[in-house]
Amino acid sequence: MEQTKRTDIATLGEFGLIEKLMGSVGDDAIQTACNLVSTDLLLEGVDFDLTYFPLKHLGYKAVTVGVSDILAMNGKPKQVLMGVGISSKFAVEDIEELYDGAKTACKELGVELAGGDTSASVNGLVLSITALGSAEHTATRSGAQQNDLICLTGDLGAAYMGLHLLEREKRSFAGHDAPQPDFTGREYLLERWLRPRARVDIIESLHEANIIPTAMIDISDGMASDLLQVCRASECGARIYLERIPIARQTHDMAAELNADPVVAALNGGGDYELLFTVPLEMRDRVVKMGGVDIIGHITPAETGVALVTPDGSDIPVTAPGFTEFA
Amino acid sequence: MEQTKRTDIATLGEFGLIEKLMGSVGDDAIQTACNLVSTDLLLEGVDFDLTYFPLKHLGYKAVTVGVSDILAMNGKPKQVLMGVGISSKFAVEDIEELYDGAKTACKELGVELAGGDTSASVNGLVLSITALGSAEHTATRSGAQQNDLICLTGDLGAAYMGLHLLEREKRSFAGHDAPQPDFTGREYLLERWLRPRARVDIIESLHEANIIPTAMIDISDGMASDLLQVCRASECGARIYLERIPIARQTHDMAAELNADPVVAALNGGGDYELLFTVPLEMRDRVVKMGGVDIIGHITPAETGVALVTPDGSDIPVTAPGFTEFA
Repeated sequence: MEQTKRTDIATLGEFGLIEKLMGSVGDDAIQTACNLVSTDLLLEGVDFDLTYFPLKHLGYKAVTVGVSDILAMNGKPKQVLMGVGISSKFAVEDIEELYDGAKTACKELGVELAGGDTSASVNGLVLSITALGSAEHTATRSGAQQNDLICLTGDLGAAYMGLHLLEREKRSFAGHDAPQPDFTGREYLLERWLRPRARVDIIESLHEANIIPTAMIDISDGMASDLLQVCRASECGARIYLERIPIARQTHDMAAELNADPVVAALNGGGDYELLFTVPLEMRDRVVKMGGVDIIGHITPAETGVALVTPDGSDIPVTAPGFTEFA
Repeated sequence: MEQTKRTDIATLGEFGLIEKLMGSVGDDAIQTACNLVSTDLLLEGVDFDLTYFPLKHLGYKAVTVGVSDILAMNGKPKQVLMGVGISSKFAVEDIEELYDGAKTACKELGVELAGGDTSASVNGLVLSITALGSAEHTATRSGAQQNDLICLTGDLGAAYMGLHLLEREKRSFAGHDAPQPDFTGREYLLERWLRPRARVDIIESLHEANIIPTAMIDISDGMASDLLQVCRASECGARIYLERIPIARQTHDMAAELNADPVVAALNGGGDYELLFTVPLEMRDRVVKMGGVDIIGHITPAETGVALVTPDGSDIPVTAPGFTEFA
């Protein structure tokens, strides 16, 4: 919003704006050859705060969120549609930034931005993302089998710590006209919250390694919640090992500074957009060879529940907000 | 919202609510064999006013809006996904009503409600609809040819008059606790705004009559705007005849009462969810035989523009809001 030139959207009209963003207005529906579809809503004030969320990053993140759902089904992402509800406080240049970010993400991921749509909003910015992809061997949440290994990409909790850092700076700079917070040494946390990358590389690696996960999910709500979803859908339990949960150095440091538990951030923070998947025990070597994947536990019978095993060998039941009804 | 029982959504949690609405939580993406996809956003305060819009009807209309985009491509609708952003003023029973309406529409149209998703909103109710369908012979906006006939289903302007009637009653009953407006003789107008039906029957009739439209669009923004879209995409002009534009009795009566021009309502009102399509001249008899379709004009060279011909033979250029940039 630091733009110097600000063009009123009314001067272009709805169709003029779409044409500027997308090159043409398009048809009522897009054509596709994909077999996987997901949709997500991103709402101002809930999913993002425009006080510190640059519109370019927001467009980028919206694509990540959508594409990540396709990856979670072992699919290759192909197309994205982005709908935007825009209030009068936005100028043409703002919406161009938003779409620029989305286009950058699409380019990086090899995905077509196949449709865009704008509508008026009286209540803040609304983003709707539809992602399309194709899978030869679809993975769902419900296929995890007894003794399967639980595998996790990347590290957890950094996005959540990035959010908390931004919220803290927002509070401390409230009222300042041109806040200049110092984020030195915290760049990774900010990137994980503001500009997370969808793990399309993992789907390619799985394919090359000839691994079809028995179950898969992306880490959006928090790993605890997402693992519980897999266990519930697969009618099984799980044991995961605390010391195997990957947490980045910056996440540890930030947690210490905020007097927070980095494990709680890792398990319940969410917004990581990493992938959690299960594979049969005999695939262990192939998974290790892939690189960038940690084996954090294994699948157990349903009766044993979902447990976090601490270094001293004791079991802590894994819980997550919104899961009370599953008790 | 006249429910006596009101259950706080927090008692169920997000996943409990989805399970209640959809029967299960589902995967990150749905699987499909469709080749057409469309998305729409419906936003409180812009697309609907909950003062008078029953949630059951809103759910129904959301499906109509989505499915209509598939019909507009000559596709058969197959699946719908509905995402909802919900603020704290809503109870579980409200969202159940919304989904009940969506399910009713899906049942009538022979479509599967394949996915549902809820998220928190701080800024009013947000609906996102993704519709999927299949077309053997896809129609787009860009295929209209010189001399093609311009065909229109149903009648126009009633939805717009229904909206105006509801807005008038809202103003006149402002402050009343239990308003009892009398809508006798206006039922058709209300139904067209609150509970429009997607014209899936027309796609079936076209198929049976062996007619593949050269171009097609649904009437969402208003017939003038939608016809201009077709002409622009097809690089052609059009002549439509004022006396052939179908307007219902109730629309005429309401327009007279409101001192409004029924033709303006028909051309610029929008929200009709009828279909406008073009066919080669030699298909005239087949179209007439279909029934329920009016031939309102024909396609002309681009140079002649898009004109409305009045009964006295004079031409009025067709214009629409948002089309200024196309001049």
